[in-house]
Amino acid sequence: MPVDRAALESYLDASRTRRMDAYRDFLRIPSISGLPDHAPDCRRAAEWLADELRRGGAEHVSVEETGGHPVVYGDWLHAAGAPTVIVYGHYDVQPVDPLDLWESPPFEPIVKGDRLQARGASDDKGQIMIHVRAFEALLATSGRIPLNLRFVFEGEEESSSVHLDGWLAANRDRLAADLAVISDTGFFDGNRPAITVGLRGLSAAQIDVTGPGGDLHSGGYGGTVENPIFALATILAALKGPDGRVRVPGFYDDVRPLSEAERDAIARLPFDEAAYLEATGSPALHGEPGYTTLERRGARPTLEVNGIWGGFEGEGTKTIIPAHAHAKITCRLVADQRPEAIFERLRAYIEEIAPPTVRVSVRSLGGGMPSLMPIDHPATRAAARAIEATFGAEPLYIREGGSIPVGASFTGLLGLPVVLVGFTPSDEHAHAPNEWMDLRNFETGIRAVATLWHELASLPR
Amino acid sequence: MPVDRAALESYLDASRTRRMDAYRDFLRIPSISGLPDHAPDCRRAAEWLADELRRGGAEHVSVEETGGHPVVYGDWLHAAGAPTVIVYGHYDVQPVDPLDLWESPPFEPIVKGDRLQARGASDDKGQIMIHVRAFEALLATSGRIPLNLRFVFEGEEESSSVHLDGWLAANRDRLAADLAVISDTGFFDGNRPAITVGLRGLSAAQIDVTGPGGDLHSGGYGGTVENPIFALATILAALKGPDGRVRVPGFYDDVRPLSEAERDAIARLPFDEAAYLEATGSPALHGEPGYTTLERRGARPTLEVNGIWGGFEGEGTKTIIPAHAHAKITCRLVADQRPEAIFERLRAYIEEIAPPTVRVSVRSLGGGMPSLMPIDHPATRAAARAIEATFGAEPLYIREGGSIPVGASFTGLLGLPVVLVGFTPSDEHAHAPNEWMDLRNFETGIRAVATLWHELASLPR
Repeated sequence: MPVDRAALESYLDASRTRRMDAYRDFLRIPSISGLPDHAPDCRRAAEWLADELRRGGAEHVSVEETGGHPVVYGDWLHAAGAPTVIVYGHYDVQPVDPLDLWESPPFEPIVKGDRLQARGASDDKGQIMIHVRAFEALLATSGRIPLNLRFVFEGEEESSSVHLDGWLAANRDRLAADLAVISDTGFFDGNRPAITVGLRGLSAAQIDVTGPGGDLHSGGYGGTVENPIFALATILAALKGPDGRVRVPGFYDDVRPLSEAERDAIARLPFDEAAYLEATGSPALHGEPGYTTLERRGARPTLEVNGIWGGFEGEGTKTIIPAHAHAKITCRLVADQRPEAIFERLRAYIEEIAPPTVRVSVRSLGGGMPSLMPIDHPATRAAARAIEATFGAEPLYIREGGSIPVGASFTGLLGLPVVLVGFTPSDEHAHAPNEWMDLRNFETGIRAVATLWHELASLPR
Repeated sequence: MPVDRAALESYLDASRTRRMDAYRDFLRIPSISGLPDHAPDCRRAAEWLADELRRGGAEHVSVEETGGHPVVYGDWLHAAGAPTVIVYGHYDVQPVDPLDLWESPPFEPIVKGDRLQARGASDDKGQIMIHVRAFEALLATSGRIPLNLRFVFEGEEESSSVHLDGWLAANRDRLAADLAVISDTGFFDGNRPAITVGLRGLSAAQIDVTGPGGDLHSGGYGGTVENPIFALATILAALKGPDGRVRVPGFYDDVRPLSEAERDAIARLPFDEAAYLEATGSPALHGEPGYTTLERRGARPTLEVNGIWGGFEGEGTKTIIPAHAHAKITCRLVADQRPEAIFERLRAYIEEIAPPTVRVSVRSLGGGMPSLMPIDHPATRAAARAIEATFGAEPLYIREGGSIPVGASFTGLLGLPVVLVGFTPSDEHAHAPNEWMDLRNFETGIRAVATLWHELASLPR
């Protein structure tokens, strides 16, 4: 069954002012999940969003307690025999500092040409609004939706989704579905539509090296005891080769190899390596031999040192052998690596190579599963058709280097395939000052989602 | 000419109260050179000391401007044909924190049995007092001194002797001498007299590694650019072997080998390796193969990382590739290494091994020359005889792991051999709370110095 495009356009045309007013109202709520002072704002945003869902026609709408900021749930389940889709988004936003770099107050949305500028305009309030408006318009114009929808909007994505997994697990039975659609990603390279098929996972660790009982005078003791910073440097240097290949035994064992077809698809992505290099500010690109930059970023795991400290950091010189030294490490993982297994291999290797002249401890700082959705999965194909029909361009298929742990949550906890389809421009300043949404994407996104529901409804179950 | 011991003892006996009162007055002046608020106290200590020298019979006494805390100069030059000796000490002291660990206020000296406790009691006001009192007593009892003396007491030893070299260089002609005697060292292992024959020098450097133009998201960029912390770790790990031997080419080229005689002397030093290990708090001792712990500490150069920092140091995880990473390094040097040459070799090696994917800069943070005085030098032999005659024990000959830059200054700028003879117990808490001087050492030290002038006076010039 195709979308009744004329009726949809007529409805959307008539409701434009109300749609933009609601979008701006949503953006005015400073729902910064990472700052405790903003907890009431997060709850206010949740209540506001629940009201919007009810007004749009969703049922069983509730603001659900999680132990942290609430989850907003709502559904529409009257398409008997059709698939059920969970729609995920998050109503919380990033902090706004540095405030002085904002051209306008972050929670006072302003329109500049085709841009709506405010914290959350893209990430992720704008994408939630696209879904709510598409749902409302379809229901208002057809009296029904072609499939069953469950909205799950969380309030802690920007602070590690601490309570989401618990809530999903506790509500597993109630959340029966066939697919999850996550709209928290964006376009590729400017405004070219994209479907994200891969996300990297994460395994984080801290290494603590202790030597002397306290800082020692390097004159009185230098040369007679191991230096913890040197021991740590030796350990870190052994984790990767100078070519960037990780040397932890077994690190690559569970990596699903890139198919030739996918390597071809990655090679066809519009990618300006010189511009990418310039954006990094590094003197040169660098990485695992045998892979292109985009493959290294999206399809290969990596190990990074995120921070290191120990001893004296001030001006001048302090002639000590420090008592301890520390480093933070994160491994980005790809399918089918598992965070716990990678951490255990890392720990075992470090313990094996650590010199006996210091004490070394390696502890996990958590992690998240990688995810990978085949390009030829029927749901991916449906999303591609919906995008092409509305944006007028075939989507690109990208493997993101970053992680959206919630994707792994829906797969791991609920056993659902996940389609990552989002509508923000690639330079939307998410997490940065002057975040913006392209209002043309916003409008076309509503049409794309309405089309997606029809495309997914016609899939064989 | 021997000391007139009877006259000396009679004088010292009669002047004991005055001697102790003056010592305590000196200690009451909080001349902490490292704290700007105490600059007036440093000047007050200098003036007080100048008055003491005048009262004792020194001539040409003056408080000399240096650009920092003043130098106190005084001389007695009436021993025609006899050698001229420069006596060095410092009237400034270390800060006193942590104050709550002091059993009594640091600038209110108290006597506990044979101990005088106060900041500076040993380091170095006590040793200055030994010299001033020996001078005064010899002059009062003999009407003359058997050699020529120049007193040079500085006020910045505890804050890197910033202005001393400039003052020495500017006054080179005026400071003509044959020998310098520095009393800023102590005994070995309890209260066993010692002469320090070796001091390590220093060459300090900072390594700055820059990669990306700013911190990069490790998801979006991990695997495609070099991580500055990893590059720094690789560089540091290449500087030393796991056995502690420095791998910088040419590092050991200028090291004067230990003679068998000196190795035997070091092996005979009373040294409790288990107690030393326990004092470090490290799990094991460690160092360059082929050398004992005492040889590693005093007779071999070493390279230490004193501090390292870069990226995220907070709680939890921050998934970044940091823009830069930094480390501070000090090499302890032994004769005949030179700080500038060692720094240049270090810099050249680091530049050679630095990966081209980051920018690496290595800059000098200064240094100081090592010094080594032969055990069989006539001045060392004279000091040994003076100690044996007064303390009743043959001195040990030690190579200190630390550095007293002023030793190198007298050798380098004035061309003088340097004898390091001091009288503080080995556990005197210099630089720590509850610093103390053994008053028996103080008294015997006065006799030892008086004897030393006679021993040195009889040496052939």
